[in-house]
Amino acid sequence: MTASRQVDYEIIEIYDLFNPGNPELGLLPGRKPSKLTRLVVMDHTVDEIFGERIRNYFSVNRLFVEYLTLPGGDENKTLDQVLRIARRLSEIGTHRVGTPPIAIGGGVLQDVVGMASSLYRRGIPYVRVPTTLLAQIDGSVSAKNGVNYEGFRNRLGTFAPPPRTLIDRSLIATLPERQIQSGLGEALKMALIKDPVLFELLEEHGPQLVADRLQDSDNGNDAGPGREVMHRAISGMAEELQKNLWETDLRRIVDYGHTFSPVIEMQALPALLHGEVVAMDCVLSAVLALHRGMLTPAQFERIVNTTRGMGLAPSHPMFADPSVLRRALADTMRHRDNQQHLTLLQGIGRTIFVNDLTDTELDCAAQVMTELLETDESGVLSLQGGC
Amino acid sequence: MTASRQVDYEIIEIYDLFNPGNPELGLLPGRKPSKLTRLVVMDHTVDEIFGERIRNYFSVNRLFVEYLTLPGGDENKTLDQVLRIARRLSEIGTHRVGTPPIAIGGGVLQDVVGMASSLYRRGIPYVRVPTTLLAQIDGSVSAKNGVNYEGFRNRLGTFAPPPRTLIDRSLIATLPERQIQSGLGEALKMALIKDPVLFELLEEHGPQLVADRLQDSDNGNDAGPGREVMHRAISGMAEELQKNLWETDLRRIVDYGHTFSPVIEMQALPALLHGEVVAMDCVLSAVLALHRGMLTPAQFERIVNTTRGMGLAPSHPMFADPSVLRRALADTMRHRDNQQHLTLLQGIGRTIFVNDLTDTELDCAAQVMTELLETDESGVLSLQGGC
Repeated sequence: MTASRQVDYEIIEIYDLFNPGNPELGLLPGRKPSKLTRLVVMDHTVDEIFGERIRNYFSVNRLFVEYLTLPGGDENKTLDQVLRIARRLSEIGTHRVGTPPIAIGGGVLQDVVGMASSLYRRGIPYVRVPTTLLAQIDGSVSAKNGVNYEGFRNRLGTFAPPPRTLIDRSLIATLPERQIQSGLGEALKMALIKDPVLFELLEEHGPQLVADRLQDSDNGNDAGPGREVMHRAISGMAEELQKNLWETDLRRIVDYGHTFSPVIEMQALPALLHGEVVAMDCVLSAVLALHRGMLTPAQFERIVNTTRGMGLAPSHPMFADPSVLRRALADTMRHRDNQQHLTLLQGIGRTIFVNDLTDTELDCAAQVMTELLETDESGVLSLQGGC
Repeated sequence: MTASRQVDYEIIEIYDLFNPGNPELGLLPGRKPSKLTRLVVMDHTVDEIFGERIRNYFSVNRLFVEYLTLPGGDENKTLDQVLRIARRLSEIGTHRVGTPPIAIGGGVLQDVVGMASSLYRRGIPYVRVPTTLLAQIDGSVSAKNGVNYEGFRNRLGTFAPPPRTLIDRSLIATLPERQIQSGLGEALKMALIKDPVLFELLEEHGPQLVADRLQDSDNGNDAGPGREVMHRAISGMAEELQKNLWETDLRRIVDYGHTFSPVIEMQALPALLHGEVVAMDCVLSAVLALHRGMLTPAQFERIVNTTRGMGLAPSHPMFADPSVLRRALADTMRHRDNQQHLTLLQGIGRTIFVNDLTDTELDCAAQVMTELLETDESGVLSLQGGC
């Protein structure tokens, strides 16, 4: 038998969302007004920075909401947090449709609210308001949620696209520099796999994007590099995901940068941020392409320099350890029907899938990653790792 | 944006599944042979009765499996059991595809394995082998799984149709009488909403179906009432669900018998079995139709007598308590976009949806349900509950 499902969702780039005069935050999916009580879930950082404005918004607009504030951070990406939310949804009598909760926060908060919403009553709609660059251009564009479990990243979760996602670039103006850098790691991935224009923007404006948090001092109106980078990253991701939202096809170019990084990220927690390990994985995968003659040395150096220009390290001791890389690849293959399905670059902005990566290639790449640990921008790389 | 998903699944009526000469149990979805280690999850009852045959099956066929045996019963329909399974899947290195676990057991086991499979790696395929009548004709035909949470039935769960369901009628030959009766409660529902032929089979053969556990002494080959009842119940359910597998349409005739029963079942746990409360809800809803003139008194009496003929009580003190019924309806409405979406019979085998049920109608129906408590088969009902 065959059954089909169609899912409608909107991803809206918007400005000044917490201004009480802006109706968007209070609207239900389909832009209907909201009448019954809804749950607003925030992480601690959001509550600290925006809590007053958010409470004022719902109060001025006379919308009935209850609040729940949870800790963010990857160590709180747990089933316990998911259950805290589910319990609260149950306590306030959340309906199956009509009273979707609103998640305002970073990626971890989005994940736990998304998972709670996908389990409560076997799935209710929710509204997503991501507040970090990483969540805005990556996690919140996807349909996935998840929690870490038994030492594995996202080992439990679901696919559950929320019908409404509101992305307000002004919300990241207060982020620490390191979080902007981490978010740009995902923009780098998107640039490398499909968007040479985005790559040039990152290459040219990297340091400035970090320094001014993609704000362009434009009040959201004019097109500066921040706005352009964000829009290209979001629409590139949305375009890729739409055709394969439930990952029925396991060959996904958006998994670029996500082959070796998941195991390393979990092992390094909380030392490295998600976008930081993704950027390192992007560089490692670029080395593999370089050694196959699919990237020129000049292209490879541009990638490394652009990574560094955004304040991201291209390597880390774990990415230089062949045994770690082999273990990470083996674990990822369990997630890809026992295949490598490895995305490699063929120039900047184009990719192919390979399934024949050898241990020798990984060893050689690990040697280049070792050199990258030791060499700063002025250093000269052998690029062959002595292989 | 819009994304579409297509899901393929097979529901196979089969006989003598644990015979080592029958390849079906060992095959992966798509009938491919299985090579890597898979998890087989059983409930205690299954392990006790069939454990030896099941272990022999996999051993003779040289298939790599690990076993996990869990307690069944509604009090074990918990997230803890789901996590025990998820942990075991992770320990044995279950892949995203290619190593689907096999769930052999009743409805609770199917629910917890289904939910664990739907969460592990954000969803892996699994194979379902239901071993109770209720699970065979109802739960295992649907795409749903779930656990009870915070006192609410199925408050957490997902929709996740397994690609392969194997239904072997010979497995229910050892069930206690009461479990057969409970399963027939769901067959009664299916008969009332869409299958007058099935209703006549239940009416005519009720006591015999219970006594011989639908076995027909036919070794699966000839068409007796047991086989016919099971096939009609399964295919009726499968047909209804296919067009609305994710319940995007909240008006579902298969929710007949499931409007008042969920709250009452949870309150009565473990005194009443699922099919027992479903049958009572079917009768209550028939009273509502009777009072609206949509069922004749003769049709109503046939329904009551058929219910009793299968050894099921048509009423219970909680179904005779108007305040309980109102609370139950209110809770169900939260699950139906604040609408009643109440399925009522228009004769046997036809339905309409109503949204205008009044408290007075519920009160009158509760009085008839009180009379049904006091009257046995020989008694005379007023049928109007004095209204």
